[in-house]
Amino acid sequence: MVNPYNTDLDRNPANYQPLTPLTFLERAASVYPDYTAIIHGALRRSYREFYARSRRLASALAGRGIGRGDTVSALLANTPAMLESHYGVPMCGAVLHSINTRLDAETVAFQLDHAAARLIIVDSEFMPLLHEALGLTRVKPFVVQYDDPEFHGGQRDHEALDYEDFLAHGDPDFDWLMPEDEWDAISINYTSGTTGNPKGVVSHHRGAYLLAQGNALTTSMAKHAVYLWTLPMFHCNGWCFPWTLSAIAGTHVCLRQVRAEPIWSALAEHAVTHMCGAPVVMSLMIGAPDHEKRSLGHKVQFFTAAAPPPEKLLADMQQAGFEVTHLYGLTETYGPAVVNDWHQGWSDLPPEQQAALKARQGVRYLPLEGLDVLDPETMTPVPRDGKTMGEVMFRGNVVMKGYFKNPEATRESFQGGWFHSGDLGVIHPDGYIQLKDRSKDVIISGGENISSMEVEEVLYRHPSVAVAAVVAMPHPKWGETPCAFIEKAAGHEVDAAGMRDWCKENLASYKVPGRFVFAEIPRTSTGKIQKFHLREQARILSGDGGG
Amino acid sequence: MVNPYNTDLDRNPANYQPLTPLTFLERAASVYPDYTAIIHGALRRSYREFYARSRRLASALAGRGIGRGDTVSALLANTPAMLESHYGVPMCGAVLHSINTRLDAETVAFQLDHAAARLIIVDSEFMPLLHEALGLTRVKPFVVQYDDPEFHGGQRDHEALDYEDFLAHGDPDFDWLMPEDEWDAISINYTSGTTGNPKGVVSHHRGAYLLAQGNALTTSMAKHAVYLWTLPMFHCNGWCFPWTLSAIAGTHVCLRQVRAEPIWSALAEHAVTHMCGAPVVMSLMIGAPDHEKRSLGHKVQFFTAAAPPPEKLLADMQQAGFEVTHLYGLTETYGPAVVNDWHQGWSDLPPEQQAALKARQGVRYLPLEGLDVLDPETMTPVPRDGKTMGEVMFRGNVVMKGYFKNPEATRESFQGGWFHSGDLGVIHPDGYIQLKDRSKDVIISGGENISSMEVEEVLYRHPSVAVAAVVAMPHPKWGETPCAFIEKAAGHEVDAAGMRDWCKENLASYKVPGRFVFAEIPRTSTGKIQKFHLREQARILSGDGGG
Ligand SMILES: Nc1ncnc2c1ncn2[C@@H]1O[C@H](COP(=O)(O)OP(=O)(O)OP(=O)(O)O)[C@@H](O)[C@H]1O
Ligand SMILES: Nc1ncnc2c1ncn2[C@@H]1O[C@H](COP(=O)(O)OP(=O)(O)OP(=O)(O)O)[C@@H](O)[C@H]1O
Ligand SMILES: [Mg+2]
Ligand SMILES: [Mg+2]
Repeated sequence: MVNPYNTDLDRNPANYQPLTPLTFLERAASVYPDYTAIIHGALRRSYREFYARSRRLASALAGRGIGRGDTVSALLANTPAMLESHYGVPMCGAVLHSINTRLDAETVAFQLDHAAARLIIVDSEFMPLLHEALGLTRVKPFVVQYDDPEFHGGQRDHEALDYEDFLAHGDPDFDWLMPEDEWDAISINYTSGTTGNPKGVVSHHRGAYLLAQGNALTTSMAKHAVYLWTLPMFHCNGWCFPWTLSAIAGTHVCLRQVRAEPIWSALAEHAVTHMCGAPVVMSLMIGAPDHEKRSLGHKVQFFTAAAPPPEKLLADMQQAGFEVTHLYGLTETYGPAVVNDWHQGWSDLPPEQQAALKARQGVRYLPLEGLDVLDPETMTPVPRDGKTMGEVMFRGNVVMKGYFKNPEATRESFQGGWFHSGDLGVIHPDGYIQLKDRSKDVIISGGENISSMEVEEVLYRHPSVAVAAVVAMPHPKWGETPCAFIEKAAGHEVDAAGMRDWCKENLASYKVPGRFVFAEIPRTSTGKIQKFHLREQARILSGDGGG
Repeated sequence: MVNPYNTDLDRNPANYQPLTPLTFLERAASVYPDYTAIIHGALRRSYREFYARSRRLASALAGRGIGRGDTVSALLANTPAMLESHYGVPMCGAVLHSINTRLDAETVAFQLDHAAARLIIVDSEFMPLLHEALGLTRVKPFVVQYDDPEFHGGQRDHEALDYEDFLAHGDPDFDWLMPEDEWDAISINYTSGTTGNPKGVVSHHRGAYLLAQGNALTTSMAKHAVYLWTLPMFHCNGWCFPWTLSAIAGTHVCLRQVRAEPIWSALAEHAVTHMCGAPVVMSLMIGAPDHEKRSLGHKVQFFTAAAPPPEKLLADMQQAGFEVTHLYGLTETYGPAVVNDWHQGWSDLPPEQQAALKARQGVRYLPLEGLDVLDPETMTPVPRDGKTMGEVMFRGNVVMKGYFKNPEATRESFQGGWFHSGDLGVIHPDGYIQLKDRSKDVIISGGENISSMEVEEVLYRHPSVAVAAVVAMPHPKWGETPCAFIEKAAGHEVDAAGMRDWCKENLASYKVPGRFVFAEIPRTSTGKIQKFHLREQARILSGDGGG
């Protein structure tokens, strides 16, 4: 039977337009042209200027023949140029490739080649890194150098074009390109490489539009909120906040460097309402000397991800006037797609219970249609008992298009109609998920699964432990056994025997690490522990492989 | 050349799901099951209950063979059953047809036939109206009677099924149907019929999702906001607010009748944060006797549309603790799609300037991609001078699918890639639009266009005028001339000669009405003046047509 509601009721340009966050900036500039869009040191940019400069950038790129299907890279700090890139690059149809500025030259070179970068916008500070990388690449992108007034030092490269000159040749009224389809790519971001080789995550306009709005709704961001850039914009496009702010005509407060003093000043001087960062940003703020701190006349919303926020930090932050919300996500989900949505009643519980509740990653973001913990073999949900482990899986409109030029990894990650996060966790009776490990980090000893996180938690409770990481070490009898790597707390002493006793007291015996190694622990440029390096070391130590 | 960003990066269930506001309720119920979703008199419904009852409804409907492509009608007041219908009906795949409860039986019958209603949920209060209508229809929908505990009177119809019995047979865990495509219809709403025969406006899931979020962003609705139902839900699905509230897990405060006393009580007792309504709702509240009013400890956001809010009312509302925002839209745009976005600086202007600024309809909603005033002949934008008239046109994702079973009207309304609103207006230098008239209401006298609204404004300024409406009257020499219909203010006297003098003083002479008629002015059930009736009267009066 013909459905009458599908008859003579087709799409046309009047009732269907591709979703794209680019329209947010166009709107903010047309409705609030004189409102401050960007604060950066002494610099103030209105929405009129922000939009005009983004169009200039798009026009200048188009003038160099760059358009749909092309990649434009950015090696930039949290500066106005980085915000402009989030609009100007897709406004010419191209795809924005933001590079982590703390990467080594080899990795930068790998990314530039893999993404086939045609042009790169680079901050003077990172010019040496870029030059080193370009010595290794096959591609030879055109270089545009951004000379940030807030950066002192660095040199003009006379083979590169100056960013302001580049923009000067662009048209501020450029008739920018809407995506042909909302499924068109808006950006490519490489994963941190915590678990191995970085993969190029391709995001589309539709997802960016939806997550940008999802952020505003999740964080109850009212119109004209003021957002401080303590989260690197190169990290999943700053979790889409460069686009969120235009949706609510808010103000970006840029920050080149994450240091306590400028953070506290910005909070006080610009009446910041919202900010994001890993727990380490909170530690930094709380750990600052008193003369650098400022008392705030208003509540600030702090959104944290990458790791669960520890209890002590939560208490300190609350006292300093912050409301901390725990988020979780991956590059593959445009940044945060899970939120520890707080229940009013929980605030009356004792602090340690509150911290335990807040350590859970939580529930799906509004624009994510599905979130569950599944058995990856059978693809059935694990029981909601807070105990049974499974793999955290996502489904919905804020999941990536796929991995660039990697159909196999793409297919694998989408098997069974869910995106496989590689994170292991449990689901509590109330539907909140909690991460327990990464699938690659689980240790299987005598057929039993051991969560490396559980062992790490016990180690962390020992006063002499500053940092702990546990990985699998080959074992002739049990297959694997835990191997613990430890950085000692300053001024503390402990040895392997002491740690072993501590673990025996606090863990089932099969979970007690077979080896304790006291050494510096390797990290990625985003500060995450690189367990695959540790696993290699453990293999060598066990004497059974590698060398 | 092949675009590498469109290669091996296809849609699949993991990364693409149809947008639908139904997922908002599923999420609210899973994250905040114990939060209050609905307040109605003494009744409280949690999100767990709201969701379970909506699924029961969907299941019960499906059990009667109702599904995709079918129409379910609702003749309901602002009650919990109406909220449940907004979810339960589309959850079985069907299309919700909300009927204005103040319509006459003929119009109700016309709608039921035209929409091919298969089932109707009806409040006991409107049973007599339904019976009268069913005496006229070709379709014989199955009748489910809702016996609202807040309604006293009315009788059980023993041929109709009781709503609670109907739900009792439904499954609270029903595996409800996602739309097959986000373009699938979610509702049909008939226009008010102000300008002629009502048309059936078909809305889709995508638009409802986007406007529902757009509402929250436009009104800066934080999580758990409390919304008072003074706007009829049968009017453009309550401007999508039934869906908005689930997105932020807020609380609906239902209200059967728009009267001052229950409004003020609800505001005070439930700490209402947001409400909507035509300016007449504000008049009603402000005009209430003092003992019915309550002083509010908090600011309430009032969103008004249908007509610009008058200055005096704005001042009174502000003093009573409200922030009034002016919205504009049509049934064809899911309700409001234009907002008078306020600039902080404007609040320092003198009250009459503020009122003049607030009388403008404004700028596009975030999910509307285009809004402009165009010359409908040439489809070029009029100059932004605040003077040149053109037709207000919309383009974007919150514009309807089209008119049901009316391809011709659909085609006409979408001509040239824009939705033609039939409203005439100007665009100011700052891009804010202002309505001046409806295209069908413009009077053409000696080749000059006369805005009926301009003449009405002058009439309204006369102390003896309570209501005024101006339409075209045929004229042997000029083609047309304005004809004024006036309702006198209580206790005031004035005659045609007096009004003519007043107009001569305040209007160009060709705009002075050729005739003044003192009589009651016909209105639609939503309170809008029916100018097509007045035009007919004017034609008769001019002695040149009809009778
Ligand atoms: N709130 C959180 N709590 C615990 N872990 C988190 C949290 N948020 C993010 N993570 C971790 O970070 C991961 C996402 O990080 P990202 O996408 O930046 O790269 P990566 O996964 O570390 O790198 P790669 O995929 O290359 O191994 C998640 O899969 C999860 O393991
Ligand atoms: N803020 C406002 N100011 C002035 N007029 C408004 C405002 N908001 C809505 N309107 C009027 O209401 C109309 C939309 O009303 P609705 O869709 O309910 O039915 P209708 O247009 O009155 O009926 P029909 O289309 O059958 O003639 C708009 O086209 C506009 O004329
Ligand atoms: Mg990863
Ligand atoms: Mg209309």
